[in-house]
Amino acid sequence: MGSGPVRLGDIAARLGGELLGDPRLEISAVGTLRGAGPGAISFLAQPRFRSDLATTSASAVIVGMDDRDASALPRIVCKNPYAYFARVSALLNPPAPVTPGIHPSAIVATDAVVAPTAQVGPGCIIGAGARIGGAASLGPGCTLGERVSIGPDSRLHARVTIYAGCKIGARAVVHSGAVIGADGFGYAPEGGQWLKIPQIGRVLIGDDVEIGANTTIDRGAIEDTIIEDGVKLDNQIQIGHNCRIGAHTAIAGCVGIAGSTTIGRHCMIGGAAMIGGHLTIVDRVIVAGSTVVTKSIHAPGTYLSVIPAEEAREWRRMVAHLRGLARVTERLRELDRRVRHLEQGE
Amino acid sequence: MGSGPVRLGDIAARLGGELLGDPRLEISAVGTLRGAGPGAISFLAQPRFRSDLATTSASAVIVGMDDRDASALPRIVCKNPYAYFARVSALLNPPAPVTPGIHPSAIVATDAVVAPTAQVGPGCIIGAGARIGGAASLGPGCTLGERVSIGPDSRLHARVTIYAGCKIGARAVVHSGAVIGADGFGYAPEGGQWLKIPQIGRVLIGDDVEIGANTTIDRGAIEDTIIEDGVKLDNQIQIGHNCRIGAHTAIAGCVGIAGSTTIGRHCMIGGAAMIGGHLTIVDRVIVAGSTVVTKSIHAPGTYLSVIPAEEAREWRRMVAHLRGLARVTERLRELDRRVRHLEQGE
Amino acid sequence: MGSGPVRLGDIAARLGGELLGDPRLEISAVGTLRGAGPGAISFLAQPRFRSDLATTSASAVIVGMDDRDASALPRIVCKNPYAYFARVSALLNPPAPVTPGIHPSAIVATDAVVAPTAQVGPGCIIGAGARIGGAASLGPGCTLGERVSIGPDSRLHARVTIYAGCKIGARAVVHSGAVIGADGFGYAPEGGQWLKIPQIGRVLIGDDVEIGANTTIDRGAIEDTIIEDGVKLDNQIQIGHNCRIGAHTAIAGCVGIAGSTTIGRHCMIGGAAMIGGHLTIVDRVIVAGSTVVTKSIHAPGTYLSVIPAEEAREWRRMVAHLRGLARVTERLRELDRRVRHLEQGE
Repeated sequence: MGSGPVRLGDIAARLGGELLGDPRLEISAVGTLRGAGPGAISFLAQPRFRSDLATTSASAVIVGMDDRDASALPRIVCKNPYAYFARVSALLNPPAPVTPGIHPSAIVATDAVVAPTAQVGPGCIIGAGARIGGAASLGPGCTLGERVSIGPDSRLHARVTIYAGCKIGARAVVHSGAVIGADGFGYAPEGGQWLKIPQIGRVLIGDDVEIGANTTIDRGAIEDTIIEDGVKLDNQIQIGHNCRIGAHTAIAGCVGIAGSTTIGRHCMIGGAAMIGGHLTIVDRVIVAGSTVVTKSIHAPGTYLSVIPAEEAREWRRMVAHLRGLARVTERLRELDRRVRHLEQGE
Repeated sequence: MGSGPVRLGDIAARLGGELLGDPRLEISAVGTLRGAGPGAISFLAQPRFRSDLATTSASAVIVGMDDRDASALPRIVCKNPYAYFARVSALLNPPAPVTPGIHPSAIVATDAVVAPTAQVGPGCIIGAGARIGGAASLGPGCTLGERVSIGPDSRLHARVTIYAGCKIGARAVVHSGAVIGADGFGYAPEGGQWLKIPQIGRVLIGDDVEIGANTTIDRGAIEDTIIEDGVKLDNQIQIGHNCRIGAHTAIAGCVGIAGSTTIGRHCMIGGAAMIGGHLTIVDRVIVAGSTVVTKSIHAPGTYLSVIPAEEAREWRRMVAHLRGLARVTERLRELDRRVRHLEQGE
Repeated sequence: MGSGPVRLGDIAARLGGELLGDPRLEISAVGTLRGAGPGAISFLAQPRFRSDLATTSASAVIVGMDDRDASALPRIVCKNPYAYFARVSALLNPPAPVTPGIHPSAIVATDAVVAPTAQVGPGCIIGAGARIGGAASLGPGCTLGERVSIGPDSRLHARVTIYAGCKIGARAVVHSGAVIGADGFGYAPEGGQWLKIPQIGRVLIGDDVEIGANTTIDRGAIEDTIIEDGVKLDNQIQIGHNCRIGAHTAIAGCVGIAGSTTIGRHCMIGGAAMIGGHLTIVDRVIVAGSTVVTKSIHAPGTYLSVIPAEEAREWRRMVAHLRGLARVTERLRELDRRVRHLEQGE
């Protein structure tokens, strides 16, 4: 990865901010304050790393307004150093270019519409009626079912599978092993057995969505599963049928969301949180990692259900106490009775 | 998806139930009470949706015996409206037809036996000695190892991987990314390192089993891993080596089952439940979602280990109290001593 | 699987241990004490299975020093019967041989270097500058990005995906559906939206590492994600960007490790444990299954955070008591006040 070096002045001209230092300084890489070497630009986004500013070998740094004078290095001062850093890194590490064309080993249905500027990698299989937008890119071995639609500038990495009828918006990034549109888990019990409910809804995904490796999003049972614009999904997330994930919500790895649950906009769901089915979570809710949500959440805020791990003996002692809680209540009642007796005896 | 419309009278003739209303009414789709439009049939399976019956735009509904007169719409009255609905939906939304034949891009071992009525999709790779039953269908890019056997009428969606020697029964549905028969996690510790135990058992899967996207089922270490008839497995489930899952048990997404555990028949395991190794769970056990099972379960019933999430400050207060439980016991003992002292002083 | 039979004397000659019984006895299979039949060799590694020794149909057994005389069967006495058994099983069940050559359907970049003794299966796609070591084997449909390196004697099962720039050492085993080197989950918040941080680090994996089916290991954000020698990873594990997993650590299925966490050497992480980000766990720590680690662990030992499941009514009662803990503290305080009052009244 990586393109040629860029001058510090050109970076500031392009991305804004106040430049302090030599604009001709050449920047060829990004790095952390501790890891960066000469030629690299680093950033300070969290106060706890401020001490690294004095010892960094970076050639330049990106700092916030409050840290304007915290370093003598050539630097760019801006409001959001982390976002600024993201942009500089994207400048120095552009994604692999899209090379238009369909690899000869790909199998594309005759009535599928692939934009001339799109790239379809080796071994891809594109179903009837599918549409692939301009400058979209499919890595090796992707499978799109019938009538799948991929928006412009979207990038599917190797071996993404999208079932029939599902739609992905513009500028998506979908990582390998993701499966979008498999059947939801819907059965009617009958005589001790399970009768499959045909899963005839789709998955509709907005613009600017990222989907991590081996994440699965089920198609709707009757109506559709919806992922709104700007949602970011990490790896190995499972989203059940008929969920709706609100715009700009970020969900970390290993999260499971059972069917028919609606999550609001601008939420943050921590890794391995599990969210029950048929719930509603309002906008701007933070669910901590490994938390189990079994009821709807009606107010913004942070929600939690984790008891941190302890050394095993300590933990077992605590659990034993917990198990003994019924006895505590009993003893309290008994003591209360005895004290009342004494009080009355006075 | 979807085939042509069907007359209400033809539905009742085919699937039974009592028809009230015009038998010539044409039904072209299924829908929820709230989502269905004209031409669609809906259903009422849960009392809490009864109020939607008055306002639905559906052209017909399926109702239970108790709701025979709860609507004036054309309707079918039956014992199990949800199961009836499943059958109507299957009638209107039949699975994609199986087109017999082996795609020219598939690579099939010369001694593999593929039924003439089976379909092998593009990019499939079929190992030596494999057998694919009549009207079975393999989506694009499936890989079957040597001696794998797939029963008749089974459907593997795109990119299913089945390791050597594993067997799947009739009428299976296996979703994309599922991996069946990878090595179990078996190592002998020796001198601070791990020595691999060859995993030489197989995975044997009965009839009418459904396996979700990216679910993994490990082959047995020495003997086999067994999935009995009618088991339904959702997405991203992990089943360790030498487990046995009893017939008609349903397991929701993200569940992990460690090795050598036996789960009974007709069990229901909620999403993200985690079940330890070498356990036995009897028939007709319900394990709630996100529950951690660390001991065998010897009696039918519902089992649980979840403390629902709270607003963060509330939760932290509760955990602090929990941590202080040892002190509570101490204070109870001390109070008891003081009260006894007072009692004796009388 | 399986090769021809081996004489008991040849086993002992090759693998050591004290042979008691006829060295000409032919062994053709391995089995558990309960499952083994004539011709099979079994083993006793745990005292709780000692009673099975009397009733086994195995033709020979492997026992520890303490069990030297616990059976009259032909037997091999050794220090570590389980490790010995692993070696005997490997002798009788060697892995499928590597057949050198590149399958004609594979697509290999012209400047990729594939050792002449390596095997590249059908449908593999090998990127520019990749290197595949001697006697390495890639199953069907593996995808290696640009500059990926696979060490000698490594075996990738079907449909492994490795992103650009990642390296895997010698003698690795990687199971189907594993995705190595997808982007870490890194975004800068800006104006209520998420700005992607280019993930420019790599994944570097040492020698003798095993990676389970559908496991995902993210590439580093800026620096690399590191998996040291001898690490064993089960299925459906998620390892975030910039983690470091110490040598010979074993991690069971469904574990999630958030980004930038360092786990020491010789650790054992139980199934479905969840480990937060930016933590450090020292060497020789055991984390129990389903445990949630939210703080660094500074001392070896066993750590736990699981409250075992109960029958639902019992559990709910306990949770109600837990919720009432604030009230318990209050009542204790009140009782204390009343008792003090009584005491002062004396």
